[in-house]
Formats: sequence, C-alpha cells, structure tokens
Amino acid sequence: MLQQARIRNSDFRSKIMSAEDAAALISDGSTIGMSGFTGSGYPKAVPLALADRIRAEHARGNPFRVKIWTGASTGPELDGALAEADGIEFRLPYNSDPVARQRINDGRMDYVDMHLSQVAPMAWQGFLGRLDTAVIEIAGITPEGDLIPSSSVGNNKTWLDIAERIILEVNDWQSPLLDGMHDIYYGTALPPNRVPIPLIRPDDRIGQPHFRVDPAKVAAVVATDAPDRNAPFSPPGATAEAIAGHILEFLTWEARRAGLPPSLLPLQSGVGNVPNAVMAGLIDTPFEQMTAFTEVIQDGMLDMIEAGTLRVASATAFSLSPEKAQYFNDNAARFRDRLILRPQEISNNPELVRRLGCIAMNCLIEADIYGNVNSTRIMGSRVQNGIGGSGDFARNGYLSIFMTPSTAKGGAISAIVPQCSHVDHIGQDVQVLVTEQGLADLRGLSPRQKAEAIVARCAHPAYRPMLEDYMARAARLSHGQYAPSLPSEALSWHQRFMETGSMMP
Amino acid sequence: MLQQARIRNSDFRSKIMSAEDAAALISDGSTIGMSGFTGSGYPKAVPLALADRIRAEHARGNPFRVKIWTGASTGPELDGALAEADGIEFRLPYNSDPVARQRINDGRMDYVDMHLSQVAPMAWQGFLGRLDTAVIEIAGITPEGDLIPSSSVGNNKTWLDIAERIILEVNDWQSPLLDGMHDIYYGTALPPNRVPIPLIRPDDRIGQPHFRVDPAKVAAVVATDAPDRNAPFSPPGATAEAIAGHILEFLTWEARRAGLPPSLLPLQSGVGNVPNAVMAGLIDTPFEQMTAFTEVIQDGMLDMIEAGTLRVASATAFSLSPEKAQYFNDNAARFRDRLILRPQEISNNPELVRRLGCIAMNCLIEADIYGNVNSTRIMGSRVQNGIGGSGDFARNGYLSIFMTPSTAKGGAISAIVPQCSHVDHIGQDVQVLVTEQGLADLRGLSPRQKAEAIVARCAHPAYRPMLEDYMARAARLSHGQYAPSLPSEALSWHQRFMETGSMMP
Repeated sequence: MLQQARIRNSDFRSKIMSAEDAAALISDGSTIGMSGFTGSGYPKAVPLALADRIRAEHARGNPFRVKIWTGASTGPELDGALAEADGIEFRLPYNSDPVARQRINDGRMDYVDMHLSQVAPMAWQGFLGRLDTAVIEIAGITPEGDLIPSSSVGNNKTWLDIAERIILEVNDWQSPLLDGMHDIYYGTALPPNRVPIPLIRPDDRIGQPHFRVDPAKVAAVVATDAPDRNAPFSPPGATAEAIAGHILEFLTWEARRAGLPPSLLPLQSGVGNVPNAVMAGLIDTPFEQMTAFTEVIQDGMLDMIEAGTLRVASATAFSLSPEKAQYFNDNAARFRDRLILRPQEISNNPELVRRLGCIAMNCLIEADIYGNVNSTRIMGSRVQNGIGGSGDFARNGYLSIFMTPSTAKGGAISAIVPQCSHVDHIGQDVQVLVTEQGLADLRGLSPRQKAEAIVARCAHPAYRPMLEDYMARAARLSHGQYAPSLPSEALSWHQRFMETGSMMP
Repeated sequence: MLQQARIRNSDFRSKIMSAEDAAALISDGSTIGMSGFTGSGYPKAVPLALADRIRAEHARGNPFRVKIWTGASTGPELDGALAEADGIEFRLPYNSDPVARQRINDGRMDYVDMHLSQVAPMAWQGFLGRLDTAVIEIAGITPEGDLIPSSSVGNNKTWLDIAERIILEVNDWQSPLLDGMHDIYYGTALPPNRVPIPLIRPDDRIGQPHFRVDPAKVAAVVATDAPDRNAPFSPPGATAEAIAGHILEFLTWEARRAGLPPSLLPLQSGVGNVPNAVMAGLIDTPFEQMTAFTEVIQDGMLDMIEAGTLRVASATAFSLSPEKAQYFNDNAARFRDRLILRPQEISNNPELVRRLGCIAMNCLIEADIYGNVNSTRIMGSRVQNGIGGSGDFARNGYLSIFMTPSTAKGGAISAIVPQCSHVDHIGQDVQVLVTEQGLADLRGLSPRQKAEAIVARCAHPAYRPMLEDYMARAARLSHGQYAPSLPSEALSWHQRFMETGSMMP
C-alpha cells in the first residue's frame, strides 16, 4: 500500500487525508508557497481541489483568491486550474501557464517577475509578507521524519522553513531512486551572517539528501500518483540546427583561443529545442567529461550522459519530455550518480555561477542593434514567461550567449530591432548573440561596433536593409553618436506590428 | 631627495628617467593599462608627455593613437590631455572626463562601458587583446622591490601582472602613511580554478599590502609630485537634503522592520552631493559602528569616522574633494586603521556584495514608471559617464536604492519618464526609488503597482499629470496590461526635448 511504502513515519501517516480536506485548510487571501519548477515536482491534487473549492465559493458569491509563490513554472493542475477559477490574485516568481499568462496580460492578476536566485533570500527578508501555507510535493518521508525531495527542489527548503502550516503531497509516480540525488544546503543565512558557499566543482555535495521539517507544522499528508507534465520534445528543425551549429563552432574556437580545458566549463542552458540541439551537437565535439551547472536537466543532457560526454549535471529540477521522464524513471539507477538537484538559491547563485565560470546559453524574444536583450515581454507590455534565471547566469557567467531565430510569426516579427521594447539583459551581459543567420561576438566592442556586427551577422536579410537604413539616418540625426538612436522611430517597428500585424512596412 | 626616500630599491632607482623618455617607449597603436579610479592615483606625468608626443607626431602628419584601459575615471592630465590631443582610439571601462566624453559622443572614440568588477577577469580572459604597457602611479617602492599602492588600487594588480612593459610613477604628494592601508588579494583565478573569496566582514584583510612586480618588466620609473584631482565638494542643497531625508527615514524604518543590527549593513554609495548628504545624515541616526563596502571613500565617510559612526570603510579608491584630500594627507594616521583599499575586482565583487548584503545607493539619469533605470545615457544616445559599479552592487545588494532629483535642467527634463531611453538597471534590480518628492518602495510590486507608486511619490508635480495621462491611455490602448505601454509615444518626451529643449509640451 502506498502510504506504507512511501510514508515511513507513523506521525506523518496519521495526517493522511484527502486533497479536498487538505484544501479546506486554506482560506481566502492566503499566501501559499507551492513546490514546482518547470513542469516538475509541483503538487498535483491539492491545487485542483483548491480550485474546485474556489469555484464553489465564487458560485456562492463569496470572494476567494490566494497569493501563489513557487519555484518557477508549474503544471496545468496548479497555475492553470487556479487561474481558470480566477483564484490567483498574486503570483511570483515565474509563470509559463497560458491561462495564468492571459489573466496577467488582461490586468486581472498581479505578477512579480523575479531573478530565481533571489526568491528564497527575499522571502527571508520579509518584505513579501508572511507565508501562510506550503504545499510541497515530495517523493517520500523517511522513518526519521525527513522529506525525500521530488523531481524539483526549487524553493521548497525555504517554504518548509518559513510557512506556518505545511501540506505534503507524496507522489507515488516519482521514482524511489530520486532518494539520494538531492543536495539540500542548509548553510544560507541573511546578512550579516552569510558565509562563503563551499562549492567549487559542479559535482560537490555540500548539503544533505533530505528536507528537514517541523512535524508540528505539517497539517496534512496527501497521497498522489500522477506524472509531471513537461512540454513534449519537439525535434529541432533547420533553424535550431543552424543556431546550434554556430554556437558549437564558436565554443570550439573559444576553447582553443582561451585555452579552456577539454571539459570546457560548466554549461547552463535555457529550455527549448535550440538548447537541446546544442546539447545534441556537443556529443560530436572533442569536448569530454563535461559538466552542467544549470537550472534544469533536459532531454539532451541525459543523452550526453549516456554518450559519455557529460560527467555530471547540477540543477534544481528536471525538465524532461514525457517520454524522457518515463525513460528516466525506468532507468534512474543509470543516472542517479550523475545528477544533483539543489535549491534554486544554490543552482542559480551568482557567487557560484561566477566562481564556476558557467557558459550561459539563453533564449530571447528580441535583441536590439546595441545588444540589449528582451527575454520576457511581447511588444513591451505583454509578459511571456519571465526572466527566470537568465539574469543570474548571464551577468555572472564566463561567457553569456543569447540565441533566437532571426524572425518570428512567419517573418512578421524581426528578432533584431532598432530598440528593444523592454530590456531584461543590458549590453554588458550579452556577449554573444546568435541567430540561424550567424553569430556576433560582441565582447570588447563599442555600441556602434556591436550594431555593425549584429545587423550584418544576426539580422534576417529581409530586415537587414531596414536596420541599415535606421542606422544610417541615426548616424546623421541622433542626439549623440555613442549609440546613435532616433527616439521618434526606435519603437516604430513594434507600433507597426500592433497596427498591421507585421513589422514589415 | 625624493628618489632616495620613496624608491628604496637600487634596481628600480637605476630605471629613473624623465616622463618624456618614458613616454617615448610607447608606440602608436599600443594598448595601455593606466592606474586611476575617480580622480585618484592616476599617473600624472607620463600621459601628459605622451599627449605632447602624440601632438608632435600628428603635426608631422603621422598617425598616433592608443587604447586606454583604466580602473575607472581619471584626471584631466590623463583622459583630458590624451583626448584633447586626439590620441585615444579606444577607452574602457568608465570615463567622466568632459573632453573624452565629447569625443565619444561625436563618434570619434570607441568606448566600452563595463561592469567595474568584470574588467580584471575579462582582461585575463584575453578577448580584449594584449596589454602592451602599464603606467601605474604608486606611493613608493620597498627595499624588496614591491610596490606601495597609491590613493587608488583599481585594476593595477592586473595591469602589472599582464602588461608586457611597465612604467611606474612614484608620486611624492601621496601620503607615506598610505603604506599598509591596502589589501591586495592574489587569490583570484580564471575558472575552472576559482575558489571562494575568504572575506566575510568588510574589515577582513585577505591579501598583502603591496603589489608584486616582475622587475624585468619595469622599463621606467618616473618621479612626480602632483596632487590627485577630484571634484570640489559642493554643499548639498535643499533637493539633496530632501532626498537624503527620505532615505534616512526609510533605512530607519527598514532596520526596525527587518531586525537589522545597529550597525545596519555595509553601505555602498555612489559619488556626489546627494550621497554625501546621506552620509552626513547618518551621523545623527541611532546607527552605530557602521561599515562601508563600496567603490570610493568620499568626504562624508571621513566625517562619519571622525564622528565615531563609521567603524571601517573598504573601497578601491579615495574620491575626496581637494580640501578633504589635503586634510586626509595631514591626518592620515588618524584614518589609516579605518580604511582599506582593495582591487576593484574585490571591492565590487558580486560574491562579496551579496554575502555582505550591501545597502546600495546609486544615482541615476532617468527612471521609468516601471522602475527601470537609465544611469548612463542622455536621450539614449549620448553617454554621460558609464555604468561603473552600479550594476555590481544593485543586483547583488541586500537593498538597492536609486536616487535623483525629480527634474533636471531647471525643470525641462523629468527624471521620471514613460519609458527609459536606455536601460542600465532592470526593474528587478531597482528596489527603492527616491527623489526630493518622496520615496517609492517597489519591492514585491507588480509593474502596474510600481507605476502607481513611482508617479505618486517620486515624479515632480509638474510632470505628474502627464504621466497619469499616459498611464490612463495605456490602460485603454496597450497591447497588454501587464506593463501597459504605448510604443508610439513612450519615447516622445525625449523627442520633444531634442526638438524644443524641454520635455514639457
């Protein structure tokens, strides 16, 4: 029986109840710290039951909305269900659920988009308010009453520590072999009591495998058996392959130029089919015994481990396609010594990213000719997902690469624009820009030199003459010639898209 | 005799020569690493002699331009003289010289604006090219052949290590009591060999007092006797006093709310009369035994030390008014145990800024209603100085405060605009915004909540109705309601200023 096998502590067994009963413990206006990072390790039953309860209260004419803190994105059973029920008034720090996104962009849900490394320390700082309830998925409870983390760690350590009441979901779907893969570091503190984080290699273990928890705070234990839900794998097309090819060529050149070791430096990689194409391509390079120090473990990293290219990956969560997640669960023994999951305040920690010298590879929505990057906002005003950990890695890595197809929406949008409609990453933090057209190494260039390189190497040929025309007129008419710009038309491409459906005149 | 007193090593004494002879060692196209951070510790004779040489070569019709790397800004004898001679083709990482600035904004000098913590590691990475010559001001040479640093450390350790040839200026004006104040840490490395920086308190000394140098690389030693040149002290007016008042009130409230210690947390403070007013005000608060972990030691910090409020200040340079610099030189014994000067890769290190939990206080040019900050560019295209260390501190500090008068140019420019014409600090890194009008605590707010707070509390009343009108129309017409904006007029205030001389219609 599930409860016997996974919940090996009688005190916790006595708290087993239904998701509905657990959800009844949550009241209108509560702040809830949920587990979950990408589609992994989020609670799958209590949020659904809470959404039902919220709908019922709304039907009775009663207000019921909650504030949700998570690790990053979650699954449809959490953000989707609660947003659908109009049950979320406030959300942090990252969201990729389409229903929640629509509510945010309709102005009906407040959303605070945060650097993922900063969520836990800022929660400790206290200005975000009190955390009433933590709802945390785990893979099991030890006889001693410690918690075996699930397929993501995220901010769970912090939610368990600071929440006044705790609801646990024990998910039988998660592999029992997750036990031992986690490294939960309890050495963080607020200043003036912070000390160096004693991690100097991606595979260092500096903590313990389990969460500790005050059993007196645990109000409910709910048994579940439901899969994580991450995006299905989409095979990289020609565009992704081309981008990956440019990056692989560059990394090979840079490793030779800079005398980097054969294991290169720890990789950080955003989510998506372009990063997966880079991972796939790394299998065929001369690099060996590589490491990853990153947010999420993706399909491509498991392939690299099996190919012998990747020695170890450190992250805070899995982000595997459904097929690969099943494959992992069926073959966990083969991977468990090669994978480490840590709290996101450690996986994304600037101190560690800088010390290790991560090679940061992140996707973007648009870049401007001066190398500023917008990773989050469509036309400046609609949020797509959020900044996530890109700022943690891009500013502190040894090398910061940003990549994108050069156009979107069938060519109606140019990813290279005169000026970003919103900036998430300033020019200083964007060292290499890549599209399927080519790669621009922006290191050590002045703004005008960057503009030449970006337009010539990264812009789509259909938009290149328009960018050259802008630059030529800015060179005549701009207020200053350091980074020539024409405020009267710097955002006109976005305006045109909103009016006509295309940035192309 | 000067040479005997300051140059206590015979090998170095044999290399004494005139500034003109030393400048003759530098050739057209060279890359030169100069000492200097703010107006402190920059070489005062060789750059002037080099400027003379460049002018002479130009008069003969010969090309002669060099690439200049520094710590940050320098003095008129360096950037001013060389720019005036049209002798600089490339400059990094920060400049505040008006002549050089004009050349940059005329498009006649390439300028790379860098995070100050990253200059030394990036120079080691090698992509900036080879450093031909270092020209370093020092306060003396020990009998063992080590170098006693001057009134700034900046990137000198790195320039001395990587340059192929070294020219030293020994400046008799600098106080002999500087000897022992510096802490030069030689434990940095490139990844994969980086280790934790063993500093956990602002007053920890983790290095050695002197620079080491390969004597074989030292080609010239030049004797000088010339003062540093920093900006004169300007007494804070009513606006600066009001801004400081808001910040002091907030810090007092925050210390109580968050349970901060009576010594608060280490202060980082930008340069100028507003930060000096904050320092002056801190003398009269209940805070005691405070510390500073910052870039520069300003007038106000010496006052705080004399008042007993400040226990220790760690920085990379002095930035004292001429009167205060003289006062320091006359009373150095009183201060030397309270002041530590470090390389800027340490003074500004993100690992340390985050560990110590600095309270970052920086100035800005403009902020937009969503809390993005432009610290560097006038109307988006003209650079003022550069980002300096503001990004090192703002992203990693415990608290990031940005401050500005609400208007400039007699009211013709609003410091609060619908959208920044350039972004140096994204909303996530701007937690508190202050003008003489008031203070907005932006922590934990969504973009629309930030806009309400910033317009109500920080905008000048003359511009507030215009901002409210923009927000009201954006709330109706924007593509998305997450951060409502109207690209067709988001930069129209800047356009209007360029056309009419005022942002006011």
